[in-house]
Amino acid sequence: MNRNDVTEKIIAAKVNQGLKWEDIAKAVGLSKEWVTAGCLGQMTFNAAQAATLAGIFSLTEEEARWLQVVPYKGSLPTAVPTDPLIYRWYEIVSVYGSTIKELIHEEFGDGIMSAIDFSMDIQREPHANGDRVQVLLSGKFLPYKSY
Amino acid sequence: MNRNDVTEKIIAAKVNQGLKWEDIAKAVGLSKEWVTAGCLGQMTFNAAQAATLAGIFSLTEEEARWLQVVPYKGSLPTAVPTDPLIYRWYEIVSVYGSTIKELIHEEFGDGIMSAIDFSMDIQREPHANGDRVQVLLSGKFLPYKSY
Amino acid sequence: MNRNDVTEKIIAAKVNQGLKWEDIAKAVGLSKEWVTAGCLGQMTFNAAQAATLAGIFSLTEEEARWLQVVPYKGSLPTAVPTDPLIYRWYEIVSVYGSTIKELIHEEFGDGIMSAIDFSMDIQREPHANGDRVQVLLSGKFLPYKSY
Amino acid sequence: MNRNDVTEKIIAAKVNQGLKWEDIAKAVGLSKEWVTAGCLGQMTFNAAQAATLAGIFSLTEEEARWLQVVPYKGSLPTAVPTDPLIYRWYEIVSVYGSTIKELIHEEFGDGIMSAIDFSMDIQREPHANGDRVQVLLSGKFLPYKSY
Amino acid sequence: MNRNDVTEKIIAAKVNQGLKWEDIAKAVGLSKEWVTAGCLGQMTFNAAQAATLAGIFSLTEEEARWLQVVPYKGSLPTAVPTDPLIYRWYEIVSVYGSTIKELIHEEFGDGIMSAIDFSMDIQREPHANGDRVQVLLSGKFLPYKSY
Amino acid sequence: MNRNDVTEKIIAAKVNQGLKWEDIAKAVGLSKEWVTAGCLGQMTFNAAQAATLAGIFSLTEEEARWLQVVPYKGSLPTAVPTDPLIYRWYEIVSVYGSTIKELIHEEFGDGIMSAIDFSMDIQREPHANGDRVQVLLSGKFLPYKSY
Amino acid sequence: MNRNDVTEKIIAAKVNQGLKWEDIAKAVGLSKEWVTAGCLGQMTFNAAQAATLAGIFSLTEEEARWLQVVPYKGSLPTAVPTDPLIYRWYEIVSVYGSTIKELIHEEFGDGIMSAIDFSMDIQREPHANGDRVQVLLSGKFLPYKSY
Amino acid sequence: MNRNDVTEKIIAAKVNQGLKWEDIAKAVGLSKEWVTAGCLGQMTFNAAQAATLAGIFSLTEEEARWLQVVPYKGSLPTAVPTDPLIYRWYEIVSVYGSTIKELIHEEFGDGIMSAIDFSMDIQREPHANGDRVQVLLSGKFLPYKSY
Amino acid sequence: MNRNDVTEKIIAAKVNQGLKWEDIAKAVGLSKEWVTAGCLGQMTFNAAQAATLAGIFSLTEEEARWLQVVPYKGSLPTAVPTDPLIYRWYEIVSVYGSTIKELIHEEFGDGIMSAIDFSMDIQREPHANGDRVQVLLSGKFLPYKSY
Amino acid sequence: MNRNDVTEKIIAAKVNQGLKWEDIAKAVGLSKEWVTAGCLGQMTFNAAQAATLAGIFSLTEEEARWLQVVPYKGSLPTAVPTDPLIYRWYEIVSVYGSTIKELIHEEFGDGIMSAIDFSMDIQREPHANGDRVQVLLSGKFLPYKSY
Repeated sequence: MNRNDVTEKIIAAKVNQGLKWEDIAKAVGLSKEWVTAGCLGQMTFNAAQAATLAGIFSLTEEEARWLQVVPYKGSLPTAVPTDPLIYRWYEIVSVYGSTIKELIHEEFGDGIMSAIDFSMDIQREPHANGDRVQVLLSGKFLPYKSY
Repeated sequence: MNRNDVTEKIIAAKVNQGLKWEDIAKAVGLSKEWVTAGCLGQMTFNAAQAATLAGIFSLTEEEARWLQVVPYKGSLPTAVPTDPLIYRWYEIVSVYGSTIKELIHEEFGDGIMSAIDFSMDIQREPHANGDRVQVLLSGKFLPYKSY
Repeated sequence: MNRNDVTEKIIAAKVNQGLKWEDIAKAVGLSKEWVTAGCLGQMTFNAAQAATLAGIFSLTEEEARWLQVVPYKGSLPTAVPTDPLIYRWYEIVSVYGSTIKELIHEEFGDGIMSAIDFSMDIQREPHANGDRVQVLLSGKFLPYKSY
Repeated sequence: MNRNDVTEKIIAAKVNQGLKWEDIAKAVGLSKEWVTAGCLGQMTFNAAQAATLAGIFSLTEEEARWLQVVPYKGSLPTAVPTDPLIYRWYEIVSVYGSTIKELIHEEFGDGIMSAIDFSMDIQREPHANGDRVQVLLSGKFLPYKSY
Repeated sequence: MNRNDVTEKIIAAKVNQGLKWEDIAKAVGLSKEWVTAGCLGQMTFNAAQAATLAGIFSLTEEEARWLQVVPYKGSLPTAVPTDPLIYRWYEIVSVYGSTIKELIHEEFGDGIMSAIDFSMDIQREPHANGDRVQVLLSGKFLPYKSY
Repeated sequence: MNRNDVTEKIIAAKVNQGLKWEDIAKAVGLSKEWVTAGCLGQMTFNAAQAATLAGIFSLTEEEARWLQVVPYKGSLPTAVPTDPLIYRWYEIVSVYGSTIKELIHEEFGDGIMSAIDFSMDIQREPHANGDRVQVLLSGKFLPYKSY
Repeated sequence: MNRNDVTEKIIAAKVNQGLKWEDIAKAVGLSKEWVTAGCLGQMTFNAAQAATLAGIFSLTEEEARWLQVVPYKGSLPTAVPTDPLIYRWYEIVSVYGSTIKELIHEEFGDGIMSAIDFSMDIQREPHANGDRVQVLLSGKFLPYKSY
Repeated sequence: MNRNDVTEKIIAAKVNQGLKWEDIAKAVGLSKEWVTAGCLGQMTFNAAQAATLAGIFSLTEEEARWLQVVPYKGSLPTAVPTDPLIYRWYEIVSVYGSTIKELIHEEFGDGIMSAIDFSMDIQREPHANGDRVQVLLSGKFLPYKSY
Repeated sequence: MNRNDVTEKIIAAKVNQGLKWEDIAKAVGLSKEWVTAGCLGQMTFNAAQAATLAGIFSLTEEEARWLQVVPYKGSLPTAVPTDPLIYRWYEIVSVYGSTIKELIHEEFGDGIMSAIDFSMDIQREPHANGDRVQVLLSGKFLPYKSY
Repeated sequence: MNRNDVTEKIIAAKVNQGLKWEDIAKAVGLSKEWVTAGCLGQMTFNAAQAATLAGIFSLTEEEARWLQVVPYKGSLPTAVPTDPLIYRWYEIVSVYGSTIKELIHEEFGDGIMSAIDFSMDIQREPHANGDRVQVLLSGKFLPYKSY
């Protein structure tokens, strides 16, 4: 057994039980973004969170233990994702990547926007011409320091 | 001459003149995100915008004309970007990609978040533990329709 | 169980029962292109459509539920397809890609032809020198807008 | 000098002269799809066609001669194209590739749709919700024969 | 079950029974090249041919049905083949590819040598310094036509 | 200067002078296949052959010397060739590769068909349904020997 | 002109003048590791540092300005480095990567060792059996936090 | 059974028993870095070490024997690692690779830092602004010698 | 069952029985290099050799038959090998490849060193500063001949 | 100027002067293998050796200085070499790689054969059936040590 087996079991259980990530996140008491990432094998749960999830998805004790082990991260099967929804994000990085780099450096100097001290919030933005997906990303700026 | 030559000339001129993208965008009268992307060879300017930029960067008439031709897009030299700042965005897609997919589908059904009918806003978010980069993405949801 | 298992079961059932995609599509009441794509794991069915397919292919309730979950899309095992029929399409993109780009931009300006708000119709075109495959593609033009 | 040099000269001349592919094609007397592909270095012109193009783009005699040499084809710089407009076509092959294969085989048996004995027609399709790009592809069916 | 399972079963049966492709082809009544390609999962058999092969390899009815389904073609596990015998062919394409292109174009003009309307004949060519493998390839020339 | 420069000069001279490979080969006194491969930078000429070619293409003494240096071989810019004519050969290796392997081993045992002690002959094969390209390959069989 | 041109000029100047990185770093007043990385185009200098380097390498004012622009980082020409010295580091990541991951997680929990808030010190470690290279890496631990 | 099976069993046993690599290493009597690497299938244990590990993880005699067989090394599933913690090390090689090369050559001349006669020590470095990961690498310098 | 299954069984049996390749080769009566390559699925055994190996490794009759079938060769899981011992050989080809090419051509002219009519002998070379691995390779020179 | 420019100049000079590597090596006073590798940009010369080579190839003082700078090594343009002579070596690593690994480990235990403390000797081996290339490789065995 490994973390991947647990992820697959969670996904299958969710399909079978007709659950929503939003409700699962509420049960865990954290954001839907972080909890979903964890259920998909990208984050590490603590004992209490794992117990809650074990209850929801009927996980065994061993499976619950795997949820508390830091996983090997990366949720995509290919370097360039083939799924259209995920590809659009890859395209944003491809088309706007140099722009994002220029503007963050202009404001902050040399450094990066952290993908670790980071949060993400996905919301529906109602719009007359068709609703929009609004995503708010927040990552700490980490400067390169000379030494 | 091609668009890439014009992009390189603009970048070199900006370094030599010590300009800021924010001020260039103000002169054009649009967001810093879109104008920077355009100057980096990813968007198409109209005649008036191209004239403004030609004035700022001392472009020839031919160079200004290239700014009005739709470019071959994609601003990164490798499929997996090596620059640390841009890589962090690739990592967000890698680690959170399946999560983004799940949550958008949960809210909207099958479809994608457009990377064309799309805007991006990058801001400094002051924070006691170190300022953060805040990025707001907004893309129209486009549903797959059966036919 | 995952969507891929259901796709493989459907394909095997179709071979064993000697069915035609056209007849399956008629039973579902939609185009043969969309229904086949869905049966091959690329589209999402609603409950009624899934029930119809479950009847045709003797799917279990759980399998029918997977047909209603948005799949991870992309139906080819390699970035450059090896199958001769599919490769010819890749070659069309390779040889005519820059032409398609030029002509759509000439007519519509900067933007894309949507692959989401999109339909496809494949027909036999009788011809004295050998029948032809005629494919009509229709995708909404989505303009890049400045902001 | 090689064909690529001639292609780059033609593109630059077109930008500088503000020409349209449609008009260039009319001057040559063939479809805009085939003529554009030829000007972009994918097709071979005969002497008369090359002379017409040499007139339009002020090509030298040597450059006109290169237009009559069969080029090394393939117009994209990477196996998976990064330009959003061209990528959407790659995505269509990725998502619908197995569907296209199934439906052509169902109608015609084992074989391919030719990309050589092939034509393409790109048109604007007016639509209340936003105009669409309509593309009609026609390729001869070539059967695999046993021997 | 899929075509690949049937291919593996055929290969294993051939090893166990000590059969020769030449004899199998004679039983089917076609060339050893086409029949072997079909048994290796690259061609589509008709009902009579499939029945003959089912008899030889003790295939079930379902397995025989798979032989009549058009397979996803491409028989090599990597883009550049590692097996020395097959690599030599890849090397011929690599070293002589531009030569083949030049000479066919010189003789026929722009177009291709079909790999569909195609046959292959492999023979032993006795030679004093060591026997040779002689391969005769015949493919219809398909011209690019302007339109 | 390197061999590649000489190859490019030869190709450009051939285009400008309107020569045919067949006539060049006759002047050299060898097959059109080998001479073309050599002119395209894949084979090594001796002093007399180089002198003949220097005469035809107006090569300098230094350029003629490069024709006598063994080149770094491989005439294709990508591992999977994009040019349709050359790709068809790659496809033949992909689709028929395992078949070729099986049939040569069946006839000769373990070993390879040499791509070095090798010759190729390309001919037009007149045919009522359209002329065909006929290619005869002959390579010495080299057995693996135990030791 | 771009940063890469400046990097190449610095390297050539260093070879011609017979300088040592250690002395260059002393002139700048920082570690040899950081200064060398900066000279090789990976870090951003401030005005005073750039002036010092301009003096050492006879850089123009424009070149000195490029040293103060944040560069596109990544100093290796291929994803898997071919140079034996650098490959050994890649091999350490390959062989010990999972070990490093396990031990950092065991000590710190889920998170990463920063490559931004990071320093490196390379020293000679005298040893009877042959001197050793000793490298001390220090990177801040950044925890993943739930939200 | 192969070494990989044993590695997976060890990892699963460690998760189930809630063990720490540090304690396992103490039981074996060697550093936590080397023992962890060995347990993850990268190093070769002797009979006594294998017996100790067999006791800890309840391995069968056959499994213990596999621990004493030299493994095929390399612990990462992709050439560019996707896991953020391991990627940071890849990034260090990418950004600092040329710097490391320059400084080791400056001190030692042409040669490499061995990844075989090599040791690694990972420690927590307490720090007011957040603890740091400190890694000490020591590899014998191996000079290229002329011959 | 396929050849790979037999290879894995042989390796596992060797580990379990504690055999040495050298002794296995002696039993077969050939060099340790060729016999090991054969046992690892790269060479083809005759009936007598297969019988000997079947006796040593307790192979079934079917498994012994697979040893007599020419295998699909290539023993490495990735194009650039990750295992340090095998990588060193890849590095030798990378660093010395152009040197080997120059020196063989200088001595023999255009052609190759055969990897088929080839043998290899690996020996321990005692040395005061640490024993060395000595490998003697012998491959027939095959000249390119004009035709 | 960089090392690559010097390498290209040396190769061109050698072609123009009709020199042999063996004679160049004699002038330098070292093996033809090491000197050729150095001239091809893979090894580092000392001042005296560089002076000798500068005399032979009419190098400038600056060019001679580059010969004394440690180069970025790796002499092949692609990961899998396309040149037939070099490919055969790659094939040897591919086909015999696992065998070499097994036999070195059987004789020496876990460790590698050094590619740094390494020498190579290439000789003609006269043979009645055609002369052979004999290559003697000698690399120090470096054991993995526990710590």
